[in-house]
Formats: sequence, C-alpha cells, structure tokens
Amino acid sequence: MTARRMRPLAALALAGMLTTTAAVAAVAGNLTDHGDGARLDGDQTAAVREEIKSGKARNVILLIGDGMGDSEITIARNYAHGAAGAFPGIDALPLTGQLTTYALDKSDGKPNYVADSASSATAWATGTKTYNGAISVDVADVDQRSILEIARANGLRTGNVSTAEIQDATPAVLGAHVSQRGCYAPSSTTARCPEDALENGGPGSITEQLLETRADVTLGGGAASFDEKATAGPWEGRTLLAQAKERGFQVVTDSDQLAAVRTADQERPVLGLFARGNLPTRWVGPVATQGGAKEPAVRCEENPQRTDATPDLAQLTSTAIDLLDSRRAKKGFFLQVEGASIDKQDHAANPCGQIGETVDLDEAVQVALEFAEKDGDTLVIVTADHAHTSQIVGAGTSTPGLTRTLVTADGKNMTVAYGTSDAGGSQAHTGSQVRVAAYGPRAANVVGLSDQVDLFFTMRDALGLDPDAPAPGTPVIEKVSVDDGERLRGRETITARVGGDTARTVIALSRDGKVVADNTRGRHNRTAGERPRLVLDTRELRDGSYDLTVTATSTGGRSVETSLDVTVRNGRR
Amino acid sequence: MTARRMRPLAALALAGMLTTTAAVAAVAGNLTDHGDGARLDGDQTAAVREEIKSGKARNVILLIGDGMGDSEITIARNYAHGAAGAFPGIDALPLTGQLTTYALDKSDGKPNYVADSASSATAWATGTKTYNGAISVDVADVDQRSILEIARANGLRTGNVSTAEIQDATPAVLGAHVSQRGCYAPSSTTARCPEDALENGGPGSITEQLLETRADVTLGGGAASFDEKATAGPWEGRTLLAQAKERGFQVVTDSDQLAAVRTADQERPVLGLFARGNLPTRWVGPVATQGGAKEPAVRCEENPQRTDATPDLAQLTSTAIDLLDSRRAKKGFFLQVEGASIDKQDHAANPCGQIGETVDLDEAVQVALEFAEKDGDTLVIVTADHAHTSQIVGAGTSTPGLTRTLVTADGKNMTVAYGTSDAGGSQAHTGSQVRVAAYGPRAANVVGLSDQVDLFFTMRDALGLDPDAPAPGTPVIEKVSVDDGERLRGRETITARVGGDTARTVIALSRDGKVVADNTRGRHNRTAGERPRLVLDTRELRDGSYDLTVTATSTGGRSVETSLDVTVRNGRR
Repeated sequence: MTARRMRPLAALALAGMLTTTAAVAAVAGNLTDHGDGARLDGDQTAAVREEIKSGKARNVILLIGDGMGDSEITIARNYAHGAAGAFPGIDALPLTGQLTTYALDKSDGKPNYVADSASSATAWATGTKTYNGAISVDVADVDQRSILEIARANGLRTGNVSTAEIQDATPAVLGAHVSQRGCYAPSSTTARCPEDALENGGPGSITEQLLETRADVTLGGGAASFDEKATAGPWEGRTLLAQAKERGFQVVTDSDQLAAVRTADQERPVLGLFARGNLPTRWVGPVATQGGAKEPAVRCEENPQRTDATPDLAQLTSTAIDLLDSRRAKKGFFLQVEGASIDKQDHAANPCGQIGETVDLDEAVQVALEFAEKDGDTLVIVTADHAHTSQIVGAGTSTPGLTRTLVTADGKNMTVAYGTSDAGGSQAHTGSQVRVAAYGPRAANVVGLSDQVDLFFTMRDALGLDPDAPAPGTPVIEKVSVDDGERLRGRETITARVGGDTARTVIALSRDGKVVADNTRGRHNRTAGERPRLVLDTRELRDGSYDLTVTATSTGGRSVETSLDVTVRNGRR
Repeated sequence: MTARRMRPLAALALAGMLTTTAAVAAVAGNLTDHGDGARLDGDQTAAVREEIKSGKARNVILLIGDGMGDSEITIARNYAHGAAGAFPGIDALPLTGQLTTYALDKSDGKPNYVADSASSATAWATGTKTYNGAISVDVADVDQRSILEIARANGLRTGNVSTAEIQDATPAVLGAHVSQRGCYAPSSTTARCPEDALENGGPGSITEQLLETRADVTLGGGAASFDEKATAGPWEGRTLLAQAKERGFQVVTDSDQLAAVRTADQERPVLGLFARGNLPTRWVGPVATQGGAKEPAVRCEENPQRTDATPDLAQLTSTAIDLLDSRRAKKGFFLQVEGASIDKQDHAANPCGQIGETVDLDEAVQVALEFAEKDGDTLVIVTADHAHTSQIVGAGTSTPGLTRTLVTADGKNMTVAYGTSDAGGSQAHTGSQVRVAAYGPRAANVVGLSDQVDLFFTMRDALGLDPDAPAPGTPVIEKVSVDDGERLRGRETITARVGGDTARTVIALSRDGKVVADNTRGRHNRTAGERPRLVLDTRELRDGSYDLTVTATSTGGRSVETSLDVTVRNGRR
C-alpha cells in the first residue's frame, strides 16, 4: 500500500516545515497493484475509539474554509498532493461527519437552501438560524450572542483571524450584530443599516462593534474602514483607527510588527490590519473560461503581490495561539480562523486561487493540530460554511460553463468546471451538505449528520460556558429585594444584589420625577459592593405611588437600570 | 429544538411502514429560535463511543447509491424531508467519513480524477484500483477476485441486488471479469471483448460469468441479455436463460414470483429479472432545461410505469436478506444492494428521477438497518461510487447549464442545476470525495478519510475471509511430496495433499508422453481422499527424465493439474 491514514501526530511529523512555495508534494509510487491506494493500515477501530474523548476542553480552535465543500477539498488535494495523497492538516483530523448549511428566508422563517457566509456563520457562532446577510441577528433582527462574546464573558481569551477583511461575514459574526453584512463602516451603516448607525442610537458599524467587543486578538484585512469617522458618541469625528488606538488596541500592519507583539489582553488587545481589503491570495493562475478545458494545462504560481510583509494564515494562527495561550491563566481561549478566499476565488472561477487558499488553510490546521496535540486539552474543528460551484470533470472536457485544466502533483491533467454563472458573473454558492472534522475533547459531536447550529452548542458545552455570563465591563443587577407593585410601610431596607462589573449602585425612590430618598448618603446606606442598600422610614413619606430605580454603573461608566412601581401606605396623606 | 439526531432504532421506529407514494414527510415546526435546527440532543460523545464496535461481523450489507454524492443526498433530503429533516435510513447510520473515488488511466497507471461505476466498484469489490470501464480486472487486465467470490469461497451465502440491469457495472464487478463494461451478452462480448468471448477460449460475457459465479441471490433487471445464445462450450447454441434454468437457477420475473421463493442456495440459486433493461424509476417529473429554473416550481409524481409487478429496492433487499440469513448456517452472508438510477437520472438531468431513487435507496437502507439492529452481528455500509453533476443553486436562478425548480417538503422552492453537459447530452460524473457511513462491527473503519479500496479490506477482514479460499466446486492441489527436479530411486511413495472440492486425484508418471505408472490401480495406490498416493518401484523403470503429473478433479468434473520434472537414477539404462 502506498498511502495510509495518518493520525495527527504522524501527519504533523511528516508535514515538517510549513512550505510557502507553490511546489506540490511528491506523490507516492505505484497505485496499480492490489491494495495500492488504500489509506488505512488495517483495522482502525481501536484508533478511532481512542480519539473519542469526553470531558471538557480548555480551548477551542474553529477553522473555517469559506466555500470549502468536499469538491473544493478534493480539487486542492489532487492538485497539491495527488489523488492518493492527503492534506497533513485537513485530512488528518480523526473524526468526521456532514453538516447541513441551509439558511432561512426572512419573509417566512422557512428554509433557503443556499446559505451565504453571514447566515451560516451566525448559525455556528450563535446557535440560531437566520437569513442570508444577517450578522448575528435572528430573522426578527434580534441580536444573538456569539460564542466569542460568551467565551469572553466567561473569562476566556478570544481570537478572530481571517484572510478576509475583518468586517467580512465570518469574522464579523463573532463581534457584531447588524442586519446587513455590508455595513462595515459608518458611511455604509448610515446608508444600509440606519437602525444600527450611531447617530440613530444604534451600536454602530461592524468595525465599531468589533472594537466594542474587544477580542484579545483580531487579525485580518479591512484597514480601509478604519479611515472613516464615527458619526456620533464619544469618538464622533475621529477615525476608527484613532479610536482603536485610544482604546488601547495595539495596531499592527505587517509581519514584522506582528512578530514584535508580546502580549494581547483586555488592556492591550491586538488589532492586525494587513491589507486595506482582503489579504492577497497565495497562488495565482488563469481563470476558467468558456472552453478553457481544452487549452494547455497549467500549473499554479506564487502570487507576487503576497510579499513577506503579509503574514500567511499559518503565521496568523500560530501568533494568535501564542498570544492567547497562557497556562498561568485560569481559563483557556476561543479562536476562530478563516481561510476566506477559497470562496472568493471560487466566485471568480479561479482554480489556482482557490487551491492556494485551501493549501494555506491546511497549514493553519496543521498549526492548530500541533498545538492541540501538545496541549491535550483543545478541541479543533474544521469545516466549511457552505458548498460552492467548482467541480472536477473529465480531463479536457468542456461544459456549458467555464473550465480550466491544471497539471496536478500526479503529473496528470485535472479539469475544474464552474457552472453556476456565465463568464464575468460571480459563481454561486451551492446547497450541498459539507464535511466537518474534529480532534480533541467532544470531537465525536461532529460524527454523523448534524447542522451548523450544533457546532455552537458543541463548542459552548465543551468549554463549559455560561451563555448568560455578563460581558467584562458590564454591570449586572441580579435581584432587587422589592417586587414590582409591592406595598411599603414603616421602616424598610431595600437591597439589590449586583454582579458583573458593578462599581456603584444607586437605589432611588422618586415621585413625579423627583427623588425623595436615595442611598448616596446616610450611615446605613451603601452604594458599593455586591449588596447595596437603601434604608428608609416610609412614614416620613406621603402615601401614594413611587418609582424605585436601581442603577448599577461599571468602573468604565456603563450603566444598567431597573425600575419598579411601589406604593407607600402608612396612613399619611 | 425541532429536529434531532436519531440513532438507528429510533429512526426505524419513526420510519414505520415503508411508503410507496410520492408523498413527502411533514416537516417539524419553527426553525427561527435559538437552538432550532439543531440535530443533536446534547453531547453525543458516549453515544458515538457505543457505536464503535470491534470484533468480527457475521454478515455484511453494502448499499451503494450510484452517483449519490453529498449534493444528491442533500437535494433528496430537502425535497422529501425538508432541510431540517433527515432520511430515516441514510442519515441514521452513526459513523461517517469521506471516500476518495479516483480511477486510474490504463495507459500509465496514474490517477484519472473522475471515476465511472466500473472502476469504482472494482475498487471496493476487489481492493484494486483500475481504469474506467474495467470490470474486476486491474490496469493490466488481470482478473481481481471480488468480495462476493471470496465470501462464497469461504462458505458464506451471497447476494447481488440492483435497480439496474444485473450486467451493469456495480452488480457486474461482483461476479465477472471483463475489460469492457459493455460486454453484457455473447454478441457484445464477441464484438468488444473478443479475448473474453467463449469461442476464443475466454470466460464469456458478463451474464455468463454471473451464472458461473452463482451467487445465491441475484436480483435486478437485464433480462434482454438472457435471450442471446452461447457461442461455444457446453451450452453452445442455447439461450442464456435456458442455461440458467438448466443450471438450477430459480428464475423469477415479478413481485409475486419473487414472494413465492422459499429458499436460495447453491443447489437452487435465485435469479430475479424484473425488466428487460433497468427497473423503472420510482418518481418522474420534468427534466432540467435551459432557463428551466424560472418555470413554475413542480412536485414529483409517481411513475405509472412502475407497477406492483416490479418490486422496489426495499422489497428486493428485504427478500434477499430473508433468503440469505439463516441462523442454522455456520456462516453468514455478503449482500450488495445498489440504487443504480440516482446516477442514471442525474445523467438525464432529471431531478425528480434522481430524488425518487434516493428515497427508494433510503428505504432499502432502513430494511438493512432494521435487520442489522435485530441481528447484532451485521456490518452495514452505505456510500456512493462517485459524485455527480446536480447542485442546489439559489431558488429560481438560471445557470449556463440546465435547471429545474421543485417545491420541497418545506413548501419552499429549490432549484437544481446541471452544469456539465448541454441539453440533450449526458450530464457527467464529477470527482469529489463522497460520504461513506456505517453501522455495526468495524464500522469505525469508515470514519475519516479513506478510499474505496479500503472498503474491500474492511469488509474482508470484518467477515474474517481467507482471500485465497478456493471457490466451491474447485479442486485444489495443496502439496506434492516430490519437488520439481527431484531424483527418484528404489521404492518411492509419491503423495499429494488435496483440498477444496476434490473427488479424485490421478498421479501419473510418464515418459515421452506415455504413462508408465499411475495410481488408478494397485493395492497400495489411492486416488480418493485428501492424501492420494502412488507407490512404485523405480527400479522397474529405465533411468532418465520423467513427467510427474497430478490431476485433481471435482465432483462436477472440474480439473486442476500440477506437473513436475523428475529423474529416475538406479543404474538401469
């Protein structure tokens, strides 16, 4: 037998140095004899059983190949490793299954069979199905909390890495909530998502929301949006870049600067912006054309536009892990890594483009697996957000759509066909179920048929996250000792139980908009701590209806308020 | 949550009566809330671990959806069960993975990235990669023994079921060895595979070889080939149908006749021929056309040509299992079941055709799982032989190729696109890896990435088969006590060790073509039993070179022969 299933350790050992050239792996010898082409080395039942691990994971690394359906994986494997070869990362994950990816129609809440990256990423990031274009909001446009937001609220470190603009759908869902994926910056938000615009009291553009969400590490493209200025709020008239710097972000824009970063935390989160738009692709080559299959077969080439100044996805992943992983920390981390341009190059009917990006993602998967093997406590999941157009057809075969023939690692011709749009148009997403693969604690949850929504619960529960934990910097009023509509008489002690990041809690009683008593003074009153209180003698007040307002404020000045109606009844008119 | 992963038992209970109408399953309610659309009910780690079973399997049932790539599965699921629904059979198998399906080019033995059903079926049936069109021969046209032939030689009962002609590639590989898949009958064999033709000393057409292989149960279409006459050999001038009957086959041609069969064994194997060509499809509907996506959405209809006289795949599967399963027998069975027309309808750009055939296969999978659950000792594997053309695109979207819009079980429109051939042409196979799923002992061998070749070894080793076991009715000479070139002197006892089905063994010594001594008479000689012998006094012979020939003959008259050169040297000139 020439090729065998490799378990991750063996695979990683074989992978060795990560390559940054367009050179493809040498292919194993003969395939023609009985047993050649087998990938397994005897019965693997015990080996698979060994990979089934329960318990909790300290860390989760989710790697997304945007548009990386089974066809895209096979195309890239054939080209880079040969048909009998294997990706050292993507193909080495031991447990596998299929995910359904459908979206919903906003109009009726029923299935839309072809998802975009926004609805699908919202599904795994929040556990809620939604419509195409939605960024972590449901079909009623209600915000859905993301796995990154929840992880952060639970004290984990968080990272968000993409080869796309960081405002692109897949990274955006982790830290923003908007009804239109295009609302990257203040101007597009004002135009397309006015309800989200700062000047209308909304949470702002995707970029501004990502700053607010404050992942410890955010790496990708999308610098252009940071040139725009906030339209309202504390940073009104200032660029988003200036805002990021003022809010403590370490902004880096090339490989050297990134390599120089030593720490990333809530004090000094890292924001890497390595391109104004998307990062340049790894490989280039001729696009598919009408009848292109019959032109001489080509090999892919390095993209001269991707210089050493641009980190590749493996470097981004490796740096993110280094910055997020700290054995001294009580909690672990959540990291999402996206190979975004598999999709974008599939849209463009560019086989070399999509293959190079798959190879790039594979190296990131190798980095993640290498860490997870050493760590022993990390769940790694690799999947796609939706299937895409590209298909392998008979070598040299023309189709009604676009085709291109490549020379693979086997030294043979492979024709890739794009059949969902004419030349000049954008090739379309398709609705097939996609492969999902995993390694580590609870990886068995990807086996069989599941849905992207299940990934949210698998990750949340593997990390043991409380989905309702308050975000850092958020004050929380957990309970007030008085019920709405309650009658007060005589001496009363009104207490609140507060949590989260609450620095000061004001409990005030007012009538007709005028405060008649509060806990800001007085020997028995208290505004600090987890049990603030207001002690009052209601007999000093006239009978009637009052408003009781509890206002909890964080160190950073963020407030939440709870109001109750109460009645004083002592017989004093 | 509305839909959950079902383990086989639950799934089968829900499936209830097998349906034969085009009616589709009702779809679960709301999908719009947090957690809706999840298929899992909490952590399934323990449940998956429980499905990992080692040891041996008594029976193997391999179900093939021809051309049933992940896209074809999703299209059929969306239509018949809704996007959030699940196939009670196909989707219920607990362990899943991906298979590579590439073929080899005959010219250079290197990969051909798009397989046909012949090369792919040869891969799993024999463990050998080969070229497109090859029926269980390797790239050098050397016969490769099939899993059915090996199972039969090991004393298992064997079955071969298809909705196609039984001479079609997938059923053919189990019992025939020819270089061109089209060599169904004597005339096509003479024309296309002359080296295989009986009149040229070959093994005959696919049909004739299937009769020779003599599976206990063979059910499908392909009656037309049986009208042809043998061109040479014992049945020369007789039709293949007459031959089958004379050789003891119980030939049945409709549901009632099939239902009346009580036993199937080597004395009276069952040959069901339910159509002259392929069996009629379950559902019909309009084919995809240029711009068809924009025509009013359609629902699939029952095929009026499929009457009650034609058994469906579930009935064929159920009958085959009933006939093959016998707890009184020492050994179990191997059964292959093919849903052939998923592929054929995909070639024809007919979405209703391919969907109906997938639903049909799903019911056969339910039957297999139901048996396997009860039996507890059966490995069930479900996969495709190769991916195909059909893709789900945005509802109502036209493509450069052919499209058709259907109304699904969700009550929503789904557009299916066919982009590998123009109208009137045949849509082409594609090269994507495909889903594989399994249940039972050693099912874990399908998890992760493997190749179709691995399925052969998984099935062979699960059943504990000796790949070299002689076929029933075959005499075997295991050993001769004399070596080639040995010198004989004085009194010598030459013994052979024979096995298999050996009724009589002649050991003869001859010189210049003339027998000078044999074991057919004489008190000390023996031709019967496992240790036949020839006792001779070589001093009665002249010195020189002799031929020693051992000829073992079966009860049925089949012979094998071994010849050795020996020298007599006693000093007698």
